[in-house]
Amino acid sequence: MSNLKIQITPSENKKEKLSADQLVFGRTFTDHMFIADYTEGIGWHDHRIVPYQPITLDPSATILHYGQTVFEGMKAYLSKDGIIRLFRPEENMKRMNHSCDRLSMPKINEEDALEALKQLIEIDKEWIPKEPGTSLYIRPFMIATEPHLGVSASLTYSFIIIMSPVGSYYKEGIHPVKILVESEYVRAVAGGTGTAKTAGNYASSLKAQEVADREGYSQVLWLDGIERKYIEEVGSMNVFFKISGEVVTPALNGSILDGITRKSIIQLLKHWGVPVNERKVSMEEIREAYLNGKLDEAFGTGTAAVISPIGELRWKGELFYVNNGETGEVSKKLYDALTGIQKGNIEDPFGWVVEVNV
Amino acid sequence: MSNLKIQITPSENKKEKLSADQLVFGRTFTDHMFIADYTEGIGWHDHRIVPYQPITLDPSATILHYGQTVFEGMKAYLSKDGIIRLFRPEENMKRMNHSCDRLSMPKINEEDALEALKQLIEIDKEWIPKEPGTSLYIRPFMIATEPHLGVSASLTYSFIIIMSPVGSYYKEGIHPVKILVESEYVRAVAGGTGTAKTAGNYASSLKAQEVADREGYSQVLWLDGIERKYIEEVGSMNVFFKISGEVVTPALNGSILDGITRKSIIQLLKHWGVPVNERKVSMEEIREAYLNGKLDEAFGTGTAAVISPIGELRWKGELFYVNNGETGEVSKKLYDALTGIQKGNIEDPFGWVVEVNV
Repeated sequence: MSNLKIQITPSENKKEKLSADQLVFGRTFTDHMFIADYTEGIGWHDHRIVPYQPITLDPSATILHYGQTVFEGMKAYLSKDGIIRLFRPEENMKRMNHSCDRLSMPKINEEDALEALKQLIEIDKEWIPKEPGTSLYIRPFMIATEPHLGVSASLTYSFIIIMSPVGSYYKEGIHPVKILVESEYVRAVAGGTGTAKTAGNYASSLKAQEVADREGYSQVLWLDGIERKYIEEVGSMNVFFKISGEVVTPALNGSILDGITRKSIIQLLKHWGVPVNERKVSMEEIREAYLNGKLDEAFGTGTAAVISPIGELRWKGELFYVNNGETGEVSKKLYDALTGIQKGNIEDPFGWVVEVNV
Repeated sequence: MSNLKIQITPSENKKEKLSADQLVFGRTFTDHMFIADYTEGIGWHDHRIVPYQPITLDPSATILHYGQTVFEGMKAYLSKDGIIRLFRPEENMKRMNHSCDRLSMPKINEEDALEALKQLIEIDKEWIPKEPGTSLYIRPFMIATEPHLGVSASLTYSFIIIMSPVGSYYKEGIHPVKILVESEYVRAVAGGTGTAKTAGNYASSLKAQEVADREGYSQVLWLDGIERKYIEEVGSMNVFFKISGEVVTPALNGSILDGITRKSIIQLLKHWGVPVNERKVSMEEIREAYLNGKLDEAFGTGTAAVISPIGELRWKGELFYVNNGETGEVSKKLYDALTGIQKGNIEDPFGWVVEVNV
């Protein structure tokens, strides 16, 4: 149980809320935000909930030059019975601390962070959209704020939580996307920052995404940075394939993000008795499985879309139409199960869901 | 010739200046800063010199989450005759645009940026320290400012120049440093962002530097991320070795920064008729050269120290004492020549120096 004391300054000017169909991911924010500051030698202090407002940084702040920052992405869901649910939030806080360690940043108190988040949600609960498929996207992040151009870990930080109501990812029901296998750019390599949720991994990806956009693909599939053979992730998601009845996904190898949706899917599949295997997966294996008619399904997994079926893969000029461009059976079943648990519409046999307002 | 119009707002409260021996790198800043803003569809606008002041960012600004930012580092030198000199500033502006391209950021007008820098230096010229070895460190940088959590290139940016007076890097004359060869962490890999001067590369390095600090080493030497055999850079510098009379440095391979001091040294050595070779250099080669008494010198090169002789290398528990821990002849000669050209004390046969106030 957290004993956290949070100073609350309510917003005097409540913003107007958009209807669910007007919401664009990450552009509208709620009325409040949470902030705590860290000072080397003192620790975390001044935990507060304040009106959503700009951040003021010295132009020499470490975050602006050396990218010392980590973040998380999670969602709160409101069900018809008025209960607000978080999906495995402890896992996000735990991963944030893993990221902090890689970036030489101070750890947060995971219980305190969850308590702060619950209080923030409670204050801004009117912002959670109610329509099917909608949710409140939550972005906890930490930035290095010391005004100092030396290349060394900052002595001061801010931990901030902002929240953004998001519309349905699939406006017309779950449907497959087109993915471009990336041959030029690399996301991360073992020994780098690939397992951390940190800015540099995303900065590095923008150029590849630009090319994918131009060629009509929604995201890229990253190959390993060493042999350029093995599959790592899709865009900002983990990736799974169903080959000859078995579900496979790249093993956590030191350059892949340990996705919370990924690990939940593995648990769900095992619970259902579906064979699932974490191992090296090469593009050549995917190509052969496709040509032999054994590539049943492919899908990305992440907080934003939950499950994103892959209908087309392009690799070195070859096109693979997975499951005739249709959403596969396992993809659909996983999507329904996970979103059902998240929304409280079906039973949660794993204790994944944390209710906020009880 | 630049036709740039810059709006100038002079500072009304001039800060007190520190004496040269009180200056710590990157902690004291001059009275003014330059800013220009970029908006997609409009381009760069509102070029202005204003009092040094905090930057205000929406908590969802792209820079804070996805590290879309690039920077440069350069210096202005004041000589006894009152002339202020920049060292190859066009090369910094050119490299900044190379970095912008990798990070999907808008290019700056290189001539305008140089003109803005000259005007900023002119306004704050009282801040340039005069003592031997001192200079005015200049940090041009660009940050992505759009308030949007989607992972895509920002539609708005700020280009900022701040300046910091710096004391002498070597208080008691040039002297060698101890370097730890890094075996666990990786700085960059081809296909990543290693050739760009961008935050993520530095964020990734903080953890390794923490280990080096703890073990009494001043910086790490990075090996390639693929075979972990070949030398890339030292900390935030390029690196050179003199082996059997020949100077060698790792070739630009897609993951190494194209250093301006590095390229100047190669030109100087060629000008002097010293054999210099850009190629793959493995740690095993360095080890063998050391054991056979053929490793004459090793040194890092960069804007901060110009030349940083390496007196000791540790690799997998083995210690190599380069040139008995003394500064080598070539290192010293290069240091004297480069700093002499930069300060205007010796002739500049290459047209490297740009005078600010003429």
